[in-house]
Amino acid sequence: MENSKVNIGLFGFGTVGEGLYNILKTDSKYCFRNICVKNENKKRSVDISNILSTRSRIINNSNINLIVELIDDCVVSYEIVKSSLLKGKNVVSANKKMIAYNLKEIINLQKDNGGTLLYEASSCGSIPIIKCLEESYGTSIESISGIFNGSSNYILSKLFSEDIDYEYALNLAQERGFAESNPLSDVGGFDSLYKLVIISYHAFGVIANPDDICVFGISNIRIDDVKFAKKHGCKIKLIASSRIIDNKICMSVFPKLIPSSNDLYSVENEYNAVLIDGKYFDNHYLSGKGAGAKPTSAAVISDIVSISKGYRYSNCKIDESLKLSNDFILRIYLRFNCIKDIAAFNFVDTIEIFNGSATNYIIGDIYISDLLLLKKIIEDNDLFIMSLEDVNL
Amino acid sequence: MENSKVNIGLFGFGTVGEGLYNILKTDSKYCFRNICVKNENKKRSVDISNILSTRSRIINNSNINLIVELIDDCVVSYEIVKSSLLKGKNVVSANKKMIAYNLKEIINLQKDNGGTLLYEASSCGSIPIIKCLEESYGTSIESISGIFNGSSNYILSKLFSEDIDYEYALNLAQERGFAESNPLSDVGGFDSLYKLVIISYHAFGVIANPDDICVFGISNIRIDDVKFAKKHGCKIKLIASSRIIDNKICMSVFPKLIPSSNDLYSVENEYNAVLIDGKYFDNHYLSGKGAGAKPTSAAVISDIVSISKGYRYSNCKIDESLKLSNDFILRIYLRFNCIKDIAAFNFVDTIEIFNGSATNYIIGDIYISDLLLLKKIIEDNDLFIMSLEDVNL
Repeated sequence: MENSKVNIGLFGFGTVGEGLYNILKTDSKYCFRNICVKNENKKRSVDISNILSTRSRIINNSNINLIVELIDDCVVSYEIVKSSLLKGKNVVSANKKMIAYNLKEIINLQKDNGGTLLYEASSCGSIPIIKCLEESYGTSIESISGIFNGSSNYILSKLFSEDIDYEYALNLAQERGFAESNPLSDVGGFDSLYKLVIISYHAFGVIANPDDICVFGISNIRIDDVKFAKKHGCKIKLIASSRIIDNKICMSVFPKLIPSSNDLYSVENEYNAVLIDGKYFDNHYLSGKGAGAKPTSAAVISDIVSISKGYRYSNCKIDESLKLSNDFILRIYLRFNCIKDIAAFNFVDTIEIFNGSATNYIIGDIYISDLLLLKKIIEDNDLFIMSLEDVNL
Repeated sequence: MENSKVNIGLFGFGTVGEGLYNILKTDSKYCFRNICVKNENKKRSVDISNILSTRSRIINNSNINLIVELIDDCVVSYEIVKSSLLKGKNVVSANKKMIAYNLKEIINLQKDNGGTLLYEASSCGSIPIIKCLEESYGTSIESISGIFNGSSNYILSKLFSEDIDYEYALNLAQERGFAESNPLSDVGGFDSLYKLVIISYHAFGVIANPDDICVFGISNIRIDDVKFAKKHGCKIKLIASSRIIDNKICMSVFPKLIPSSNDLYSVENEYNAVLIDGKYFDNHYLSGKGAGAKPTSAAVISDIVSISKGYRYSNCKIDESLKLSNDFILRIYLRFNCIKDIAAFNFVDTIEIFNGSATNYIIGDIYISDLLLLKKIIEDNDLFIMSLEDVNL
């Protein structure tokens, strides 16, 4: 559809959808043919016409040559994207959970039916990480990691810059619009996880099931943990990471102790950042805003422009022989309440046990596969776990 | 030539050419059909066959489907790239000066003859800045700036971390292989200038003549200037910058006072970094190694992989109505020896004049167009100039 008019069918008119609409409505190259919303009668700050709540009428409208899908519901998002791709339509989506769980199918749907799906806005807000990985690195990447969630990074920033507790910091994030009213996906690490699955596919060609990956979030963090980090001149950041070790891929999301020498140490508030390590270029660092309506709209617009130029992901790195493995030993800090909390932890090596009047912690080496089985114990007993990989205490 | 063998005609076998050869020689997808060197009989650490010194035999060889041009000489580079593109061949080049001075012609040569030219390695070493700008930003960029030269950044880093003078720091850079035996292009700001012209084309569509742009380098810097910066909690970095102001584009290369709050403050040694500001995404930051054989080879390889997938720059941003203007006022620091040195400087406003026993400087506002005319006076009288834009002293 190069040079011709882009007739958009837009699903979802939340902050991102509305932001997008406001930016593109004055550009004659774009026309919002139909906008599909859950509630047709809801009062809106923008006066939009062509509202429809029947999805199929938009997808089946042959005058619409681009579907832009910006809704939260993962199941509905899947249905919209699938039926659009089945009709060979071009689609832009920002739904990271839907994409992470359905990568293989959406690749095949594009291959079989000719449509294109782009989803830059799904990962790290406005940072053009997916196109970067698609176009610039070949097979030379060895690891990719970073701060992929703006909401939890905002909370962690506040914990380190102000003398407040987690609950208060979460409230601040919600007031500023950086965290959802149900913050579980952000602070539980799942939002980072979905982005990690998508980014790792474009970096390594791996198709990983999000459910197989070890994920710990920040919701159990206490001031004692912040104090521990500060004492060692470090900050705590929620880090998503993939690295190739012995032809296997190790993927995880962990709170991690970050020393001041690390580029990620100074990434604050709603910013995201990505570190890429590779054979020849050593290391690259990218950062930018990872949360908020405008940065997300910017990424959606970049996809709309690309798709109208005929751009598509090559999907040429796909490597089904590259398998996820959790058989790796990780050094962790585990803050606990009483000794029975850690009875089930099968440490390969114990470095330090601290029992204080206010806080207790253990530092030790443990298999990630073991941690995966201990997730419920950690959550139920209000334990806080963080990775000490890459830091010498 | 997707999926088929890439038959390479390689021009130049210096550190980058040799690095590239060593990386790709074991990959059966690539074949170095011919390697063109200046001196066929020179002793080399690598045993290469198929050496030729007749350029036309390589370019005219119909079995060669990719020309990789990695030579220093700008005129020869132009001849190779032009005759290859005239034959509709695909070309990868790293010669920033040649590209900066011939942008319009090489765009037209591709359009008229069907070949593709990629040149990611020309700008900021391994950072994939050109592909990023091509694929991810549309027309939303407002300014782009950064540290584009690893050699001069290495020298500046040493001046700030060790108590040494410019000559000694330059020697260190040369010993480490980060500066050429003739360092003028690096320390004079010209290397940054050529990269700025290329990057600005891909950011804004502007085609600027390098000779029209105001460029000052770091070769006149003295310990007094370093002390001045340190006193204000700042570092000095060589900054290339383009920004849109009132539908014109202001482009320049200046040493610049950088406060610690700026992302560029912590970019050290051979690293390069790019800051991109835009309407919707606010700001992005990218960094990576900008000098050395391996990072440059990595960028060349990324281009070879892209070109074999059919990738080409869209050249769709081209905007000949966007004109370079030097009619902008800049606040500068100018260190001088005696008052007659600055007699010709037509300051719009003078903020501060300092006359000390060891050093004299003036801080004032001046038109960039006036500075352009004063370049010879500044160089001949050993004056040091730096931009104080964006810093409050």
